Amino acid sequence: MLPQPVKKMGKQTLQFAEPPVILSMASIVGPMEGKGPFGKAFDYVMEDTLFGEKSWEKAESKMLRESILRAIRKAQLTPADIDFMFAGDLLNQIVAANFAAREINIPFLGLYGACSTMVEGMALAAVMIDGGFAHRVAVGASSHHNSAERQYRKPTEQGTQRVLWAQWTVTGAGCALLVKEGSGPVVTHCTIGQVQDLGMKDANDMGSGMAPAAADTLIRHFQDLGRQPSDYDLILSGDLGSVGLNITKELLGFEGYDVKENMTDSGVKIYSPEQDAHAGGSGCGCVATLLCGPILRRMAEGVYQRILVVGTGALLSPLSTQQGESVPAIAHAVVIEARP
Amino acid sequence: MLPQPVKKMGKQTLQFAEPPVILSMASIVGPMEGKGPFGKAFDYVMEDTLFGEKSWEKAESKMLRESILRAIRKAQLTPADIDFMFAGDLLNQIVAANFAAREINIPFLGLYGACSTMVEGMALAAVMIDGGFAHRVAVGASSHHNSAERQYRKPTEQGTQRVLWAQWTVTGAGCALLVKEGSGPVVTHCTIGQVQDLGMKDANDMGSGMAPAAADTLIRHFQDLGRQPSDYDLILSGDLGSVGLNITKELLGFEGYDVKENMTDSGVKIYSPEQDAHAGGSGCGCVATLLCGPILRRMAEGVYQRILVVGTGALLSPLSTQQGESVPAIAHAVVIEARP
Repeated sequence: MLPQPVKKMGKQTLQFAEPPVILSMASIVGPMEGKGPFGKAFDYVMEDTLFGEKSWEKAESKMLRESILRAIRKAQLTPADIDFMFAGDLLNQIVAANFAAREINIPFLGLYGACSTMVEGMALAAVMIDGGFAHRVAVGASSHHNSAERQYRKPTEQGTQRVLWAQWTVTGAGCALLVKEGSGPVVTHCTIGQVQDLGMKDANDMGSGMAPAAADTLIRHFQDLGRQPSDYDLILSGDLGSVGLNITKELLGFEGYDVKENMTDSGVKIYSPEQDAHAGGSGCGCVATLLCGPILRRMAEGVYQRILVVGTGALLSPLSTQQGESVPAIAHAVVIEARP
Repeated sequence: MLPQPVKKMGKQTLQFAEPPVILSMASIVGPMEGKGPFGKAFDYVMEDTLFGEKSWEKAESKMLRESILRAIRKAQLTPADIDFMFAGDLLNQIVAANFAAREINIPFLGLYGACSTMVEGMALAAVMIDGGFAHRVAVGASSHHNSAERQYRKPTEQGTQRVLWAQWTVTGAGCALLVKEGSGPVVTHCTIGQVQDLGMKDANDMGSGMAPAAADTLIRHFQDLGRQPSDYDLILSGDLGSVGLNITKELLGFEGYDVKENMTDSGVKIYSPEQDAHAGGSGCGCVATLLCGPILRRMAEGVYQRILVVGTGALLSPLSTQQGESVPAIAHAVVIEARP
């Protein structure tokens, strides 16, 4: 038997020896997200869902591109200063990310983790930096309500009534720039998830599908590090929505982890109840914009000292559902700590 | 200015301090690939394209799952011994990989690099191992002619005539198991590509679309390491096909790199001329099966001492083509050296 890898803790968690710094971040959202409770905490709110483009897919790619460029500019850097870029989205063949990468001259690694993509990318960026392979890595993810709706569900023109446990795909893109040295919060750990599938087959009920994956990754995280939920000022999931968040809290409770006080979900928070998003927001852009907007801002203001962000992804496709498959899901987590 | 990261050479190339070992590999192919010139060098040839499943998509996922499990078994290990798994494929939302990962209990990181996915995964696996984050990482990729054809092009029942510069998506899956210590060839370097797009809009002409990306990554690689093509016994591209390979050789020639003698392409080699695959094979499974079958076998037999494998991906989607976009492409490379 080999000894444990030096930077691996327990079964699924990595500990960074020199925690990479989140030097800057940017978030761009759609009009509906701009009218939500955190509207003022995003960098830019689009006037409409097309962002000057001819299609929603092109608008999504532009959001992602602009959020990456904005994060780089905020750090007073240029793309030539960035070693690598991780990005992904929900569109078939992640074309939002691919076409964004075409316009930005940075070596590019495409990811698909459904709505866990932002956290997957932050974990891999931290691995590259702490491993000595890069100094600066940009991580971006996006989703767009209209492009997602017509790809995954129905033509938007059809105006199909949504079930009350359905979620609303967030229109937004976020980017975090991770660097080896600098001033800002740091990524101290990540926990890489395993796929979970309890046989749930309702493709409208992503929250129930993803809850077992969120719970599994959080339990692994606590076990791997010997930590408790109370070690975190905030545990923020990606897009479980109200249904999935409640199930996750219950599942954690069964295992003796009490997260009632300090766990919430980006999808639950991003819209106000009056906006009638049913079970809440979803999509890669949900946690990407909330983290790279209001949450990291609050961290800078001293509201949070240490947070645990768990990105959640439903790994289905419309075709897998048509072929009778259930909904596999995954969750990846990162720990972010404020540094004075 | 920060000094260069310690393991980065030049602009896009990483050098592994303790090169990870390819401890084992596995390849599973379809009947047509089994009848090709390398048929006997793959681990398993499927009797038909369904592999006992009810759909081609499920067959593809099973190929990928079985190739990963087979590579792990060959090393006399179990999934519990593997730290992480990278995988991806061409299906929407990479469902072949997601559903394979559901059946294998290994922490999973999903990738999308189109047909460059296998090489992207090997680069990231080597980063995790050499960075001290993992001892053993499995990397897999797959494609299936029939599932790709009906997703990207036409219903297979339609029997549409293919243009002569079109390629034939390989039915196959390959897996390489990279480890920190052991016996086998080693991954010494990787070069991460930038997206290239010269405006080519014919979605049937993937070879021409990918050639500029292949040439760009190879030139960067030679420049970053101060090497020449003659430093490699073999330069193997992923799926440029005959059209793309010729263009790539010309582009490299313009820059003073002569690869006439030692460069070939997996797509050119995987079928015999009598099989009438037009411009050759393509798909994530093309380089994955050729590398994890005949090429690494030959390396073990001493035929090659040092090879450069450049995976090539066309980053389009059917929708991006419908919306009038050209074909962006990317290429990632890894250097593999035989060790006594």
